[in-house]
Amino acid sequence: MTEEQYVSDAESATMQKIVSLCKRRGFVFPGSEIYGGLRSAYDYGPMGVELKRNLMDEWWRTMVHGREDVVGIDAAIMMHPQVWRASGHLASFSDPLVDCKVCGERFRADKAPRAEPGEAAPITLADKGRAKAAVERLARDGIELERRGKTLHGAHAGERGYVCPNCGSPFLSEERQFNLMFRTHMGPVDPIGRIIDALRRELAAGVADDATLRQRAEEVLGDSSVYLRPETAQAMFVQFANVLQATSAKLPFGIAQMGKSFRNEVTVEHFIFRSLEFEQMEMEYFVPPGEGPRWLEYWKEERLRWWQQVGLRGDNLRLRAHGPDELAHYSDGCFDVEYRFPWGWDELEGIASRTDYDLKAHAASSGKKLDYFDPEAIDPASGKKGWRYVPHVVEPAAGATRGVLALLCDAYDEEPADADGKGARTVLRLKPRLAPIKAGILPLVKKEGMPEVARRITADFLAAGINARFDQQHSIGRRYARHDEVGTPFCLTVDGETAKDDTVTIRYRDDRRQERIKVAAAVAVVEEALRTS
Amino acid sequence: MTEEQYVSDAESATMQKIVSLCKRRGFVFPGSEIYGGLRSAYDYGPMGVELKRNLMDEWWRTMVHGREDVVGIDAAIMMHPQVWRASGHLASFSDPLVDCKVCGERFRADKAPRAEPGEAAPITLADKGRAKAAVERLARDGIELERRGKTLHGAHAGERGYVCPNCGSPFLSEERQFNLMFRTHMGPVDPIGRIIDALRRELAAGVADDATLRQRAEEVLGDSSVYLRPETAQAMFVQFANVLQATSAKLPFGIAQMGKSFRNEVTVEHFIFRSLEFEQMEMEYFVPPGEGPRWLEYWKEERLRWWQQVGLRGDNLRLRAHGPDELAHYSDGCFDVEYRFPWGWDELEGIASRTDYDLKAHAASSGKKLDYFDPEAIDPASGKKGWRYVPHVVEPAAGATRGVLALLCDAYDEEPADADGKGARTVLRLKPRLAPIKAGILPLVKKEGMPEVARRITADFLAAGINARFDQQHSIGRRYARHDEVGTPFCLTVDGETAKDDTVTIRYRDDRRQERIKVAAAVAVVEEALRTS
Repeated sequence: MTEEQYVSDAESATMQKIVSLCKRRGFVFPGSEIYGGLRSAYDYGPMGVELKRNLMDEWWRTMVHGREDVVGIDAAIMMHPQVWRASGHLASFSDPLVDCKVCGERFRADKAPRAEPGEAAPITLADKGRAKAAVERLARDGIELERRGKTLHGAHAGERGYVCPNCGSPFLSEERQFNLMFRTHMGPVDPIGRIIDALRRELAAGVADDATLRQRAEEVLGDSSVYLRPETAQAMFVQFANVLQATSAKLPFGIAQMGKSFRNEVTVEHFIFRSLEFEQMEMEYFVPPGEGPRWLEYWKEERLRWWQQVGLRGDNLRLRAHGPDELAHYSDGCFDVEYRFPWGWDELEGIASRTDYDLKAHAASSGKKLDYFDPEAIDPASGKKGWRYVPHVVEPAAGATRGVLALLCDAYDEEPADADGKGARTVLRLKPRLAPIKAGILPLVKKEGMPEVARRITADFLAAGINARFDQQHSIGRRYARHDEVGTPFCLTVDGETAKDDTVTIRYRDDRRQERIKVAAAVAVVEEALRTS
Repeated sequence: MTEEQYVSDAESATMQKIVSLCKRRGFVFPGSEIYGGLRSAYDYGPMGVELKRNLMDEWWRTMVHGREDVVGIDAAIMMHPQVWRASGHLASFSDPLVDCKVCGERFRADKAPRAEPGEAAPITLADKGRAKAAVERLARDGIELERRGKTLHGAHAGERGYVCPNCGSPFLSEERQFNLMFRTHMGPVDPIGRIIDALRRELAAGVADDATLRQRAEEVLGDSSVYLRPETAQAMFVQFANVLQATSAKLPFGIAQMGKSFRNEVTVEHFIFRSLEFEQMEMEYFVPPGEGPRWLEYWKEERLRWWQQVGLRGDNLRLRAHGPDELAHYSDGCFDVEYRFPWGWDELEGIASRTDYDLKAHAASSGKKLDYFDPEAIDPASGKKGWRYVPHVVEPAAGATRGVLALLCDAYDEEPADADGKGARTVLRLKPRLAPIKAGILPLVKKEGMPEVARRITADFLAAGINARFDQQHSIGRRYARHDEVGTPFCLTVDGETAKDDTVTIRYRDDRRQERIKVAAAVAVVEEALRTS
């Protein structure tokens, strides 16, 4: 990854500033940057890891600790391959891929620029030389185009309705389905050795068609293939019976999980918004048949409210109902919580009513019962007390990684300089309890016992469970500026007065207001401000 | 995974009881169990996820928030392949694998049963039929053995010094090195298609030797191959310069990370102790040259103390110095913190002095400078102020997953029945602040307003950040027993008296003592007990 890819030219000026702040202040670094980076891999730095933890902890507190009817789990990233067969991910979790026959670009058909069939499709190459070579190559295939500079004229869009996003060409390969799951091999096997053996045998026996060779290769790999989960949700279905048994839960109840998922996306975009490795916060809420739509209404409102509670502005959030053409065949309703990112409205979370599709699929595939018995309910079939059924599911599935990006976008602010050209600053107006550091504890100078007092105050905060940071590097002005940029809501400065009257200056991030408070009251003042902000 | 593998017969009775409790009470389930399980994959249930989070949060509080000189990061699991070339993992992170020529078992040479060269090596097959077939097969190879029942006599251990762990045979394949990293492919590539194309070409051209075919296959896969990290540590070296720049840190300082790592281990053992997917808590502490040994002393004591602080008994913990034969060639000292597991002393954490090996390796491999400039220090070479050097590293690297197992083993206790045959119980004596649930809030019965009062008390606890759980299922005795088994240190019971005098019963897990306390004081009482326990 080059620096240009990290801060893509295609992003808005706002995004470029946020990405730049993220690197400068230690929120997000390009992954493996010293080796040129790795496609869309990002590492969270000292500030980013705290912000992400705070967001995810808040979700856990709200969705698990704060509710009688939800428990958490944390499942392995590697699940049995049969899980993905049953869920449909092995068969159909794929993107339609196409290769351009002119420039060689590989792209997603569904993301390519639209072009009406018959519409003129000029082809623009990188330079004249390439354009000349392309004209000659196309001529050999019987396609005569006219070259002007590096652009070829005379081609027209075909029935596909799209052209190459790189050069504009309508000369494209067939679409092929590309599965988005990362595959690896478990156990002491040597996958390449197995394929070599199998192919050598087949080719020696005269088998030459790709389809048969591929089938043999798949057969010899078969039992060792595992996939990195593309979502956390399936574990809640697979462990439904174990959780029910261990907790004696009554419906409705939910199982929640946070963690990494992996998708070998063809298109990665918008910094940490869409990356191959990302984090999710998902909950499966199990309800009696018929109650899905009601709980969908409930959860869409709850989840929208939660995103407001973590600090996102109401006018940057909206609910969008999926149209019938967007719904999966088994789903009877779905809403997205969307955030107004710098590039436009985009998805933060999906809340879907999934009927009994998932549990039924896993029950059929595993041969295990995944149902629930309610001794008090009336069985609609028999009219008698005692009803055994496969629960329906409502799933609020949130993106943690893109949640972090939304927090950063919403909090980012620049204040202009005053009439004297002073006081310009960048400030991250994060909700105080989400901020990486809650209180910066700053000795004015590194002498006269000030660092010692500041360290004692820092220890008081930590004992109270508040992440405070002792910080004595650089001038006090530079320290305030640094803490503004990472969103620290409160800075406490120990100065010459402190030794005399046991007070410190508390500086408020949002309006730079300063007050003197008693050292003994400092923890309580910040605690109260965190609670009420 | 069969039920037998989940609770292996080879484990001690204590381990079997712990594994069984883990499933029954929702600490740990076999991963993908409805599909027969997946080799050594485990899912943390509602209690396990809380216990693991509490342990890892405690580490983060101690190692990051509680220290001026350490910051955290959270890097991607997928790193640039060059990282693993520089670190040595691609070349040498491997196990020596051997196949038994008699029974077909594949095993680790270094874990196989020892046998002196020349020592008698009886071979025992699963049944007589197999033993007969084996005798005949060996005879065809010129090896004459005598069969008695299902055992073959007359063989002797060879120069290797070990035999097959399954049948005892000394007839073994050559050892081959098996790399422990999971490999996958990134980007819109079709690895199997690439291999088919390459092999078809090579075989058509008459190339037939395995080594060349493998090399071609590796070449066509090359740029798409990525690996799941086998440790979290490398990210701290790779991001060293970015973190230094973002934080203006002064040496000595550390970078900490917690998260998943993956090793395709040939041998998995002892439940969650050694599994393919596991969690680590690692910190790299950067110090000036020459100060490694001193900081190794410091960190080995700190880390031993920490394991005691989370509740492990001192006599179940020890430090073990690595002998010269155990040390990596670049290391100048290493200690293990070991815990006395039911199967014996085994590693919880390693604290290693790694010199400047890692930063130098990544600097050489990436061509980037990974050094530090101290403007105040005297450069030993020039004798002048201002010293630029590659920092040395001391690494405390702890296992989070095996830490959870140690907590469970240490806390597990059974109390026998009294003379009347009553009162027997299983209790998890977890350190209260590590317990999954801190307070069970129990209405004595589901009426007379008791559930409502209990819910209000639960909400008070949650508002104070304490994970309390409202629980009204089953009799009060069964609820106490259930909370004892998951280690809940305090149960608060709302009963008939509560409405009259605003008191509840608080029951203490460890001695079952019961007292009445004011509802209004409940949060404070538990907070104080958590702080002092």
